[in-house]
Amino acid sequence: MSEGRGVGVPGYDFGAQATAGSPLGLEDLDLLEQTLFFGAEDEEYVRLAGDVLGDQADEILDLWYGYVGSHPHLIRYFADSEGQPDTEYLGRVRERFKQWIFDTCKRPYDQEWLDYQQEIALRHTRAKKNQTDGAHETPEHIPLRYIIAFIYPITATIKSFLANKGHDPEEVEKMFQAWFKSVVLQVTLWSYPYAKEGDF
Amino acid sequence: MSEGRGVGVPGYDFGAQATAGSPLGLEDLDLLEQTLFFGAEDEEYVRLAGDVLGDQADEILDLWYGYVGSHPHLIRYFADSEGQPDTEYLGRVRERFKQWIFDTCKRPYDQEWLDYQQEIALRHTRAKKNQTDGAHETPEHIPLRYIIAFIYPITATIKSFLANKGHDPEEVEKMFQAWFKSVVLQVTLWSYPYAKEGDF
Repeated sequence: MSEGRGVGVPGYDFGAQATAGSPLGLEDLDLLEQTLFFGAEDEEYVRLAGDVLGDQADEILDLWYGYVGSHPHLIRYFADSEGQPDTEYLGRVRERFKQWIFDTCKRPYDQEWLDYQQEIALRHTRAKKNQTDGAHETPEHIPLRYIIAFIYPITATIKSFLANKGHDPEEVEKMFQAWFKSVVLQVTLWSYPYAKEGDF
Repeated sequence: MSEGRGVGVPGYDFGAQATAGSPLGLEDLDLLEQTLFFGAEDEEYVRLAGDVLGDQADEILDLWYGYVGSHPHLIRYFADSEGQPDTEYLGRVRERFKQWIFDTCKRPYDQEWLDYQQEIALRHTRAKKNQTDGAHETPEHIPLRYIIAFIYPITATIKSFLANKGHDPEEVEKMFQAWFKSVVLQVTLWSYPYAKEGDF
């Protein structure tokens, strides 16, 4: 993918010391991966998905942003108290969202990746939502309900993009399943800061 | 489906006054359904899924229980402190899980249904997990991480069952998408009691 290692992506701090550490370790991750049947074949196919999606990232983001933008109850999390969307904030998040596609497909799911999931998680919550982008006029958190509900659109919309590069249906299906598992895994991790103490 | 209205299903209290009321209303539900693209066509296809899955419910439960039973980190939520599974508890939950397939496919998603989602939600948590079945030796809650992660197995495993009754691939796909949306919707609702005040 052309996004490479995230150089120049605003607020993208993968691996930086200033980002959050995960409260979870590799054993927690392993048990979650077992729960999701995420195995070696998925690692292979999620990487292949990265090759397939790479030069389609802008079209994917157009679709996702069109979806958010057409729903007042979603775009409001990017808007000020008068309902005016913060275009700079939207633009900065969009670049990180593209980078997230790359990271989902190409990064190893190790402790550093787990740590960055916690950083992403906190950036949806009161702890960090608006700081990275200086978007202090927008709502201070995204409710957990929409974080979890997003599993559906972020998963279902990807399949046609996976089929765009001439892979046979069986390969497309394997890429899709790996993507689906990874999205559920990541949303699970992003729910951590929302949960009551001891309940995650 | 043969389960009909849940007569004789242990601990099944749909619509009963003693069950929880939902903190959410129909407007919340409508916004979640919009977020998931759950519409009239999905209502139709999830009902069709009910026709298709009805007489396969025992096989589906065999598969799901085999999955849970083969993972020590999952079966422990049905086991006592020495790791011995509580077979009575497993059996009672199994009957309700079958009923849940029926309810997912055949019940209208209205306030009464929303209220029962809250009851199901609480039965995963410290508030109510072991009361209904008298399973007081088993862990007092199921961590949120596994509630969310279950979206994958409960969704992915259903597709072959949907294809077992001779429907054409396009219909199977529509039933699958409706099921997928409904599972994400319900897991979203089940996360409510885990979330910190004001964060859901």
